[in-house]
Amino acid sequence: MEPLIDSAALRWYGTELALLDQRRLPGETRWLTVRDADDAAVAIREMAVRGAPAIGITAAYGLALAARQQGRACTPEKLAATVRILGQSRPTAVNLYHALERMQEAALHLHGEGLIDALAREAEAIHREDQAMNRRLAEHGAALLPEGIQVYTHCNTGALATGGHGTALGVIRSAWQAGRIEGVIAGETRPWLQGARLTTWELMNERIPVTLVVDSAAAHMMASGQVGAVVVGADRIAANGDTANKIGTCTLAILARHYRLPFIVAAPSSTVDLERPDGRDIRIEQRPGEEVRSIQGVAIAPENVKVANPAFDITPAELITAIVTEQGVVERPAENGVASLAQG
Amino acid sequence: MEPLIDSAALRWYGTELALLDQRRLPGETRWLTVRDADDAAVAIREMAVRGAPAIGITAAYGLALAARQQGRACTPEKLAATVRILGQSRPTAVNLYHALERMQEAALHLHGEGLIDALAREAEAIHREDQAMNRRLAEHGAALLPEGIQVYTHCNTGALATGGHGTALGVIRSAWQAGRIEGVIAGETRPWLQGARLTTWELMNERIPVTLVVDSAAAHMMASGQVGAVVVGADRIAANGDTANKIGTCTLAILARHYRLPFIVAAPSSTVDLERPDGRDIRIEQRPGEEVRSIQGVAIAPENVKVANPAFDITPAELITAIVTEQGVVERPAENGVASLAQG
Repeated sequence: MEPLIDSAALRWYGTELALLDQRRLPGETRWLTVRDADDAAVAIREMAVRGAPAIGITAAYGLALAARQQGRACTPEKLAATVRILGQSRPTAVNLYHALERMQEAALHLHGEGLIDALAREAEAIHREDQAMNRRLAEHGAALLPEGIQVYTHCNTGALATGGHGTALGVIRSAWQAGRIEGVIAGETRPWLQGARLTTWELMNERIPVTLVVDSAAAHMMASGQVGAVVVGADRIAANGDTANKIGTCTLAILARHYRLPFIVAAPSSTVDLERPDGRDIRIEQRPGEEVRSIQGVAIAPENVKVANPAFDITPAELITAIVTEQGVVERPAENGVASLAQG
Repeated sequence: MEPLIDSAALRWYGTELALLDQRRLPGETRWLTVRDADDAAVAIREMAVRGAPAIGITAAYGLALAARQQGRACTPEKLAATVRILGQSRPTAVNLYHALERMQEAALHLHGEGLIDALAREAEAIHREDQAMNRRLAEHGAALLPEGIQVYTHCNTGALATGGHGTALGVIRSAWQAGRIEGVIAGETRPWLQGARLTTWELMNERIPVTLVVDSAAAHMMASGQVGAVVVGADRIAANGDTANKIGTCTLAILARHYRLPFIVAAPSSTVDLERPDGRDIRIEQRPGEEVRSIQGVAIAPENVKVANPAFDITPAELITAIVTEQGVVERPAENGVASLAQG
């Protein structure tokens, strides 16, 4: 059976969703079948699917499948409990709430077959729009890259994390397709190793040249002239351009400034939070120490050693050369602010 | 039986040497018995013992044990083959050559019991002098640290890597004993994880407060005010102060400059190479990609992904606040040069 919509980690068949199990990559390519909202909630909670946009799309399909199961008796009220379950599957993913809100709006005043159809169409729209948005974002971003360089990136911001193409990695993919860049250097991104496990896998699948390094090799790669720009994603962008992203991002921004390299942030406009004036009051999530003390179940440190495991850091706007969303580009965000990049 | 000389990883009993197997730390504390030069060469080659000073001391004891085995017929000529075997056990450790040269000088014109005794005394002297040198180095370095801070360190430069006390970690240990500092932040030091496996273990054994972080969290720890200084070791220091050290060191120096923190290099005077004008022509050893693709045998990346795995990087002298050897301290090495720090 051909999927109705197909992206790197999500295949929608109308009556079920197939999810690429990202916990098993790169060792194993296994697809999970999501037949109802419970399957979707488990896949999100247990991180078979990751990346905020991909999580939102999965939840939307989960709600559409729940409506189909309820059949002709389906109403928005009967779906409310399912919305709650899906909404609680990952507490911090803002896209999850946006997707479920949009689905509820699409369901208003409908019931039965009309409701079932409307929810399926809305989930498909969320998926397709995310792909299209990433492509616009990528076009804006690719034009900013110097030609003939290798791009350094961090974490995974690719097709696996989104409805397709990717954000920062989408910029890189578009720049490669346009013949602008020569290849990619991927930092492994401890502690979760998204760079080592996922970014390399995505790029190798498309035959885009990629070199894996440990995160602390970034300065050496820049000093030896092997990096022409740094492109990363964002979890949240404050009104002044201060950016919260995966731990290690601020380190890369300081290195890029030292070596006078462009440092570019690429993210969906939904990441821009104009109600937050700057990065100072963004809470830094502290994750369990066990994520640092062991790697895939293998202990690498004394079992009772104290660990600080901040999940992300704040990159001050002054260190950012440009911020890109699907709405456009702001160069020197510290001077220009990011209001023009927010959702239209 | 009490050892004649005892340090964290080396116990000398006169007729044999016990080595702490550092490959098994922190999970298991296992001591290997070295009864002859072959045992010593295997332990060095297979990295049961690591750290340039500890390797040199092990080779010296190995030669002393070889002389004892040859007994009354022992001559320097008969030991020449053993010197060669030990000298080839790790190709790049400069201390190994220094130690074996010193042992050969001590053996000149001696034979039989006189030779056996002289070599045992010389090996013991190399071990004791390394301890004493590290303590002098540490006193010089500890005085440079601001009071009441946490110190960030990288890799393992402690008692395990030396004849005792350590170099950069010796500075930290002395500063702690003097009540100057509040604790240590240890970067895990990918890819070999010496920070996670060895530095935390050493510090916890002495109840010095230590917090483990992934290497890329360094900027966040500095930005949030948790770091008061960075102290690292060195593999080689050029005449202008440019310093080769474990990959990631240059990253830390750039971050320390950004956050206006002291960045201190602590190493034995034998590291200072006045015949090398600057760091430009120091060859950067590229290690096998497998060290990055897997951790303790567990694959963490596609098996055929291209890897860049530089073993060390060059920190320009301009980024270094002070360099310390057992000979003393040079502040602002980029202005002052390091001639006064070389071996007397």
